[in-house]
Amino acid sequence: MQLRVGIDIGGTTTVVGLVDDLGNVVLKNTFLTGSESTPNTLILAIKTWIQVKAKSLQATIVSVGIGAPNGNIHTGNIEHSPNLPWKGIVPLASLFEKALNVPVKLTNDANTAALGEWIFGAAKNCNDFLFVTLGTGLGSGIVSEGKMIYGHTGMAAELGHIIIKDNGRPCGCGRNGCAETYCSASGIVTTYSEITGIDKNDLTARLIFEKALNNEPEALKAFDLLTDDLALLLANAVAFSSPSKIFLFGGLAQAGDILMKPLKAKFEAKLQNIYKGTVSLEFSGLRENDAAILGAVALAI
Amino acid sequence: MQLRVGIDIGGTTTVVGLVDDLGNVVLKNTFLTGSESTPNTLILAIKTWIQVKAKSLQATIVSVGIGAPNGNIHTGNIEHSPNLPWKGIVPLASLFEKALNVPVKLTNDANTAALGEWIFGAAKNCNDFLFVTLGTGLGSGIVSEGKMIYGHTGMAAELGHIIIKDNGRPCGCGRNGCAETYCSASGIVTTYSEITGIDKNDLTARLIFEKALNNEPEALKAFDLLTDDLALLLANAVAFSSPSKIFLFGGLAQAGDILMKPLKAKFEAKLQNIYKGTVSLEFSGLRENDAAILGAVALAI
Repeated sequence: MQLRVGIDIGGTTTVVGLVDDLGNVVLKNTFLTGSESTPNTLILAIKTWIQVKAKSLQATIVSVGIGAPNGNIHTGNIEHSPNLPWKGIVPLASLFEKALNVPVKLTNDANTAALGEWIFGAAKNCNDFLFVTLGTGLGSGIVSEGKMIYGHTGMAAELGHIIIKDNGRPCGCGRNGCAETYCSASGIVTTYSEITGIDKNDLTARLIFEKALNNEPEALKAFDLLTDDLALLLANAVAFSSPSKIFLFGGLAQAGDILMKPLKAKFEAKLQNIYKGTVSLEFSGLRENDAAILGAVALAI
Repeated sequence: MQLRVGIDIGGTTTVVGLVDDLGNVVLKNTFLTGSESTPNTLILAIKTWIQVKAKSLQATIVSVGIGAPNGNIHTGNIEHSPNLPWKGIVPLASLFEKALNVPVKLTNDANTAALGEWIFGAAKNCNDFLFVTLGTGLGSGIVSEGKMIYGHTGMAAELGHIIIKDNGRPCGCGRNGCAETYCSASGIVTTYSEITGIDKNDLTARLIFEKALNNEPEALKAFDLLTDDLALLLANAVAFSSPSKIFLFGGLAQAGDILMKPLKAKFEAKLQNIYKGTVSLEFSGLRENDAAILGAVALAI
């Protein structure tokens, strides 16, 4: 039996899955990403788990695919991620290659999730789509003319770092006004905090969502502002690549109709005439961890 | 001898070129696009010219490529162009096919110019670049991962219709705040008119450029505002496709250093860290008409 490894590196937890040739996640485990300054301890823990499980399944590991914040497909490095404890340039693909002695490919975690949607989800056979992850930040993967867009640097598709308000909120990237400071779980927390004066540390996007479900005006206002900004961001993105579908994924996408109903209406209203009615905006149907794992696996096939 | 026809349809004039297999523009002619409600008269005039010239050169015409505002590569139609006298959907490719009895391909005029740069100009062998035309409007062509981005609708790459100011200037597309109402020849005319109170009809971008050359503060201010907006538009576009080069083309690009020097500095300053130093911003080296003709010809090869 041969298995492929898919790894999804997150700021807090890292999920590792063993996947068979049919695309089934045979085994899955979650690791704390940790707060050490290098990934060595995490790599060792993952390596040990993989080797134990591969042995007990009598399986051979043939490849590893990794999705990680600020992952660069060209270099296999994580580059200056504001959301990870490992600073600067971290050659994660080559570290895993040394540890496991199999080919390793790495890219941005939003790209691997987009790949998961493309190969196993609702984007199957779709040549032009955007995949947007609304988590702590805003990540994205872009497939255009049947190709994943990595760009010259290997770091394309950073819709979260499109500046939507000049001199706006400070962003982890060092600039101001980036989309992800407004259109994300942390963005709505900031917005709601600004409206109510409640300390951000006492808030979560989940809490604001529940208040909105209970028709609390301040929470509804926070969602209203978020959907204004997100609708314009997505309508502007359509002017770039004219996708047929846009998928929303990640924690905030669980807000369901409270997010999607106004977003769809505002998005359609903001679109240029030539694009009206040409883009379907929908939630990803993939389960969060599996999409990322399967996409990471697909990367290394 | 076999020749290919490249046609560049503009709001005022239409340029037609006959191109040999080596990419030389053998003959070129300019036609008034006219103000009739259909393109029939223009097509007849072009057809007659082509047939007379082909006969005298003892040449066979093998294909026609057309660049036109709002041209759709998938349908061969011009769709709802605000800058042409022909309204609604105009099946220009099929009309030329019937007239000339050869295969005809049509796309957006910025795309054909980008193709010209790609095949004959400074973008040769470049897999990831943006091509931006700064004329009356702002057009663009995007090449990413070695492919021209047409998108699901065939109408991708409308950077001029990215909304950069909510409730901003009215745009020909029916919305407000589109980039081309600020970052274009007509945009700088509007800006200068707002600053000085001079009627727009008494101004041209050329005139404002000459005033800026003479250090007139109002004209310098108009260029300052334009380069602010254009720098952010381009920096945001980099977050989408991470190109290695951006080419500026069209009338306003002739402003030279007055445009390029501040633009380069502001663009680099606005870029996210991961993209700094990775994008060269330069003027297209192609002569305006030839690029469009050669790109149109390349489209139909």
